[in-house]
Amino acid sequence: MARVVVDVMPKPEILDPQGQAVARALPRLGFSGVTEVRQGRHFELEVDDTVDDETLAKIAEGFLANPVIEQWTIRRVEA
Amino acid sequence: MARVVVDVMPKPEILDPQGQAVARALPRLGFSGVTEVRQGRHFELEVDDTVDDETLAKIAEGFLANPVIEQWTIRRVEA
Repeated sequence: MARVVVDVMPKPEILDPQGQAVARALPRLGFSGVTEVRQGRHFELEVDDTVDDETLAKIAEGFLANPVIEQWTIRRVEA
Repeated sequence: MARVVVDVMPKPEILDPQGQAVARALPRLGFSGVTEVRQGRHFELEVDDTVDDETLAKIAEGFLANPVIEQWTIRRVEA
């Protein structure tokens, strides 16, 4: 078994209203110094050792992310 | 300036219907070997160097996560 983390983020040129809402709210709430917030999704997968990197790439591109508006990273981590 | 990543995940005892939906769909779609999927949120913050770890902890607990049902990690990364 292996643990795989996939982080999916809006592409830089895509607006991120959720992140912007947090960034704009923080000064009002008394927290200064945060200049940008972007929000995406974080997936943690438990996979058999038979699942290779090519398969993980297909899963991420096809089912975890929207390749039109999002970019993603895949990494294996220690469980 | 520093880049800070906050990963927010449902606590282990909390059901995660979104992750379960992905995990159950994958075998139907031809991908076997993925035994669990959990979905959370991934935040990337750009912060001034004046923002200390205590402040980041307050921001994460108060505004990025729901401490009742979620757990989170905070880490500074190279920009």
